[in-house]
Amino acid sequence: MSQSPAERIAYARSWTGGSPYYGRMGIAVESLDEGRAILRLDVAAGHLNADGIAHGGVLPALADAAMGSAARTLHGAAAQLLTAESNLRYLAAVRAGVVRAEGRVVKAGRRVVFTEVDISDANGSLVARGGATFIIQQREA
Amino acid sequence: MSQSPAERIAYARSWTGGSPYYGRMGIAVESLDEGRAILRLDVAAGHLNADGIAHGGVLPALADAAMGSAARTLHGAAAQLLTAESNLRYLAAVRAGVVRAEGRVVKAGRRVVFTEVDISDANGSLVARGGATFIIQQREA
Amino acid sequence: MSQSPAERIAYARSWTGGSPYYGRMGIAVESLDEGRAILRLDVAAGHLNADGIAHGGVLPALADAAMGSAARTLHGAAAQLLTAESNLRYLAAVRAGVVRAEGRVVKAGRRVVFTEVDISDANGSLVARGGATFIIQQREA
Amino acid sequence: MSQSPAERIAYARSWTGGSPYYGRMGIAVESLDEGRAILRLDVAAGHLNADGIAHGGVLPALADAAMGSAARTLHGAAAQLLTAESNLRYLAAVRAGVVRAEGRVVKAGRRVVFTEVDISDANGSLVARGGATFIIQQREA
Repeated sequence: MSQSPAERIAYARSWTGGSPYYGRMGIAVESLDEGRAILRLDVAAGHLNADGIAHGGVLPALADAAMGSAARTLHGAAAQLLTAESNLRYLAAVRAGVVRAEGRVVKAGRRVVFTEVDISDANGSLVARGGATFIIQQREA
Repeated sequence: MSQSPAERIAYARSWTGGSPYYGRMGIAVESLDEGRAILRLDVAAGHLNADGIAHGGVLPALADAAMGSAARTLHGAAAQLLTAESNLRYLAAVRAGVVRAEGRVVKAGRRVVFTEVDISDANGSLVARGGATFIIQQREA
Repeated sequence: MSQSPAERIAYARSWTGGSPYYGRMGIAVESLDEGRAILRLDVAAGHLNADGIAHGGVLPALADAAMGSAARTLHGAAAQLLTAESNLRYLAAVRAGVVRAEGRVVKAGRRVVFTEVDISDANGSLVARGGATFIIQQREA
Repeated sequence: MSQSPAERIAYARSWTGGSPYYGRMGIAVESLDEGRAILRLDVAAGHLNADGIAHGGVLPALADAAMGSAARTLHGAAAQLLTAESNLRYLAAVRAGVVRAEGRVVKAGRRVVFTEVDISDANGSLVARGGATFIIQQREA
């Protein structure tokens, strides 16, 4: 039987709790709605590169987490979502503080889901934007 | 005075050593040559998502590190390299074991450096490919 | 002497008029504002592939034109803008009729300009979204 | 009944012949093999922008054509291939002369095909590189 919106959102939330990578990276879920997810990461010493700014791998990790979560709120437990491709443009360097990523589903098709993400710093200034395509793989019933 | 190739490569290596993020993610440098860098990451429990595969943020982090390192072998201490944008296509899911990323400079201009990356699993099978554009910012002398 | 906003917008408009490619592709300017451009293309037989849908090269052409025009409204005659990279996600196939692309500047830096684009069909439905990075090259005074 | 490699390649060739867009853009097929296609375009006045270089929309059109053709040599008449997303990095400006794009299939899955493209100028210098993801839609038997 197919899940209700609330069940799908609860699944998306529990999925992040069951993903060890979120803890390792320090990524936390702030809010989840249908097709939309806001995640945060507190940029700490362990996220920096030798120039004192967040390493180029930090924001893509947060971005993928936000976009995948947004997509899971629509598909719930019925489907495994595999990232097919993603891109990100870095508008400003991030040195410290909380960054928030808002992932949104742009179009959910039968085979793929297209998503986008905005990442903002603690002042609400946009620091990165990007998108991703996820392949939908139905799970065995 | 401008650096020799060996000095630039040594700089690129020391830069990774001075970047806390490499330790946090478990990224290590295997080899550095002019315009080319091979980095590795041993996929462990802390890199996985709730479906037991490497989270979509792991490979972009390794990719950015490999491409940035490749570019730094050419620019050395003279320039700070800022990721302007990157993309990655995920060809196969990664569950465990060592993954290696080979970053290469495709073209180094005056304003930007274009790079590419191949990521392979422990069997040498290609699991992801992508690229990035870095902005070159000359450091104060 | 630097140009006024109106002069920059006039420059962006005249630039498209001086670009033979716009005529060949059937691309027309609908409106130009500071950091924003709306361009249109009437999808005709000559834009189709053998499956009767707009060829995969049509929308990127319109997208690049819209994003470049948006960027030129800010830089005017003072700079040559070179596309460094672009991407596009195709949300829906286009068969016929007018498509409109809205290009917007997301961030204009000293070295590069980041832009984005939405493409909609005659019904206003989103059919593609993407972005681009342009390198700013100051023209000789 | 499924097609032989030669039949699939013949299909890929005939498909381009049935695509009006190829004629409009001046794109011609040079060679087709399994998973690989070389296409050419003679950069003429109608491809230029007001700065006298090939408009930013010309190379993506050639790129998409080369990558789609490469993918069709593997799928033949059995599937319709829809571009899901593509990206391109522009390594050098093109002013005139023949440009050749080599499209290659990187990985053909059940749901999507990943491809890449190199574009070179008349001297064989690389001028652009990129990639694309195509969605595979089985045609009705």
